[in-house]
Amino acid sequence: MDLLQAIAQRHSYRGKFTDTAVSRDDLRMIAQAGLDAPSACNGQVASLVVVDDVPLVREIAAIVDKPVCWTAKAMIVCAVDPRPVFADLSFAAEDCAAAVENMLLTITSLGYASVWLDGVLRREHRAARIAKLLGIPDRLTVRVLLPIGVPAEPVSGIEKLAFDRRAWFNRYGGEG
Amino acid sequence: MDLLQAIAQRHSYRGKFTDTAVSRDDLRMIAQAGLDAPSACNGQVASLVVVDDVPLVREIAAIVDKPVCWTAKAMIVCAVDPRPVFADLSFAAEDCAAAVENMLLTITSLGYASVWLDGVLRREHRAARIAKLLGIPDRLTVRVLLPIGVPAEPVSGIEKLAFDRRAWFNRYGGEG
Repeated sequence: MDLLQAIAQRHSYRGKFTDTAVSRDDLRMIAQAGLDAPSACNGQVASLVVVDDVPLVREIAAIVDKPVCWTAKAMIVCAVDPRPVFADLSFAAEDCAAAVENMLLTITSLGYASVWLDGVLRREHRAARIAKLLGIPDRLTVRVLLPIGVPAEPVSGIEKLAFDRRAWFNRYGGEG
Repeated sequence: MDLLQAIAQRHSYRGKFTDTAVSRDDLRMIAQAGLDAPSACNGQVASLVVVDDVPLVREIAAIVDKPVCWTAKAMIVCAVDPRPVFADLSFAAEDCAAAVENMLLTITSLGYASVWLDGVLRREHRAARIAKLLGIPDRLTVRVLLPIGVPAEPVSGIEKLAFDRRAWFNRYGGEG
């Protein structure tokens, strides 16, 4: 799929998924796109656990307790090493987000859908419970979960502010 | 350009740029890709100042003091509102990073090059100095600067860890 088409068609999906499985080849392509994302100081602090074992997917869905996870056919968990990579600065949030965005675009381009789950993992020790389930070491933090599948419902975008409410040339609030 | 091609060909570029200008149409397309990125709770907390006024580009280059900025033909500055969008959680870093990644891919697809500058802005009050220059309000934080131009030198990738050093199926460190 064309890049700009993927960017325009990527929307957060919280509906049901069909029974169609997500192939390993596709999951590998999605994960590779995540690993290809930029990484501060080439620290490569983000790592991925791709979950396509059905009982394991169900166990994670039970932890996350969000409807979109109940019918997900696969999941990708992104964990980061939060230690600084440059002086006292960590860019783990940025590295993870860039990897997630690459994966969401690739998911879209392959005809699947997903949603970026982050805040929910920070409640009720969900991140730590998922980490334990997947054998992710204590030194890493589970930050993002992407439930993946073929959408059973239309994937539509939410209303966004117009260009000139968020972007301007040469001066904040200037010519949009 | 195809999505996966853009993802594979995007590399951080720190070399010189040619004298070719970056058109407004292209800059608008790049910025739009940034605005199309996902945003936590649809908070849309990232905003962009696209700089193509040559003296202004030079002023910012003087503040940043990185060789890649010296010959840049345009720049995009990403500022965020750091306030929480969900309970006590801010996802400003994530929103900004997703927007930046979309812009870097679009920059690549249009034949330009760039590099994600972040840490350097956190030193010597550079972020605040750029904000002042561009009229960005105090309540926002300048987080990322993208220098943009046509690369005068080959754009090549840095060596990255193999897939199975950073991604596995169903268990951390398991089958890659």
